[in-house]
Amino acid sequence: MRWGVFDSGVGGLTVVRALRRQRPGVPLVYLGDTARVPYGIRSVDTVRGYAEQAAAFMRDAGVDGLIVACNTASAVALDVFERCFPGPVLGVVEPGVEAALAASRTRRIGVIGTPATIRSDAYGRRLRSSRSDVSVHSVACPLFVPLAEEGWITGDVPVWVARRYLKTLIEAEIDTLVLGCTHYPLLVPVISEVMGDAVTLVDSADAVARAAALVEEVSPGGAGGDGTDRFVVTDMGGAFVPVAAHFLGESLSSLETVDLV
Amino acid sequence: MRWGVFDSGVGGLTVVRALRRQRPGVPLVYLGDTARVPYGIRSVDTVRGYAEQAAAFMRDAGVDGLIVACNTASAVALDVFERCFPGPVLGVVEPGVEAALAASRTRRIGVIGTPATIRSDAYGRRLRSSRSDVSVHSVACPLFVPLAEEGWITGDVPVWVARRYLKTLIEAEIDTLVLGCTHYPLLVPVISEVMGDAVTLVDSADAVARAAALVEEVSPGGAGGDGTDRFVVTDMGGAFVPVAAHFLGESLSSLETVDLV
Repeated sequence: MRWGVFDSGVGGLTVVRALRRQRPGVPLVYLGDTARVPYGIRSVDTVRGYAEQAAAFMRDAGVDGLIVACNTASAVALDVFERCFPGPVLGVVEPGVEAALAASRTRRIGVIGTPATIRSDAYGRRLRSSRSDVSVHSVACPLFVPLAEEGWITGDVPVWVARRYLKTLIEAEIDTLVLGCTHYPLLVPVISEVMGDAVTLVDSADAVARAAALVEEVSPGGAGGDGTDRFVVTDMGGAFVPVAAHFLGESLSSLETVDLV
Repeated sequence: MRWGVFDSGVGGLTVVRALRRQRPGVPLVYLGDTARVPYGIRSVDTVRGYAEQAAAFMRDAGVDGLIVACNTASAVALDVFERCFPGPVLGVVEPGVEAALAASRTRRIGVIGTPATIRSDAYGRRLRSSRSDVSVHSVACPLFVPLAEEGWITGDVPVWVARRYLKTLIEAEIDTLVLGCTHYPLLVPVISEVMGDAVTLVDSADAVARAAALVEEVSPGGAGGDGTDRFVVTDMGGAFVPVAAHFLGESLSSLETVDLV
């Protein structure tokens, strides 16, 4: 089946990469709302309005299933996507929560993300409602996104930034850390170095790609259009193309723009 | 006269602070396009469209003059503001360039800003066209904005980041550095420490506030509405209120939202 992958910007390409790693050649439509990125600093109502437009785009694009790669949109607007899109909808929060619960031995779980994701407490609420003995420790790490986009993923600067953000998580003695933002997989070497080998990192891009494979087993679905990959953005500015290559691990074959209204 | 101060987000409040420092009680209308910030990663056409809407808002708000505090909008859309707003329009680029030329002895001038501002070369072009013997050295510093908004303006992290960005400017032996982004005044202590005492920092917020005082001398203008200060944003999300207090040096008296279309 053909998947639509939606993100507020370029970060969701880590989900595309995880999907392709698990199933090479999977056909997909990627939509990055680069005209309005980042969602993490907008109000809930605004993000829910954007979600409605994105769902309509994916419906018209004829994809069979929809992956909401953006953590902010998954946290505050998953029900909007489900209401406006006819096929299966996967957010990143639920798969990330399940992977964290499966990995943790001590039930002391950390969550890092954008300010909006952490403020929504979407991971924390689901973790605590799944298991009453879970203790959740959340930290917003706003500098991680620009570090990843800048390509500063090794060396002194990211280590200093990570040490400052992750200090309270080390003190809380977590054994599992959820990377609650699509940009963070690029910073795994730094985060691992700072947290130490004893802490398992849960990459929600990987987790949602595995959830997508499960959905396909249950409902293989149709061909979903002509099977050609499409990469679509709402604004061509900035450095999307080089940053995309960095996130995707290969160059984009083509790039379209669209107005979401 | 009553000024409208436009910015893509919260950063333009450093201009408000500079205006008030020079003339306490100056009446003003501040518009921050927080639903679409940051402009620095959008395409030129998109920013020019936003400029048209912002100019219309300021015209309807009845201000006498308009200050475009956003460096990106000043660099790529000042003519749009001039076309759509009936009174005097001041961008931050021209005052910054004049202050830099006045300060520099060696004619080796550095410019730092967002990727869009640096890519536009708006400062570089104006500096070189004013004096043929000027040598301009420009560096984009994308992490400075999240550092300023995060309030990480002292300590190891900002110093490491600044050292990495400013290395080539130190090697180029500039004697004057233009802070080509409204967020950067908050990082002056760090930037000064890294660049050393011999380098003069030109704050474009201060420079445009002085330019506004000159305009008032020439054309004092009307009362501009009822004289009450207004602070208006296009989205109430994120941490605008606390960050605004940080930038402005005092709490906001009130905050409205508006849809720009």
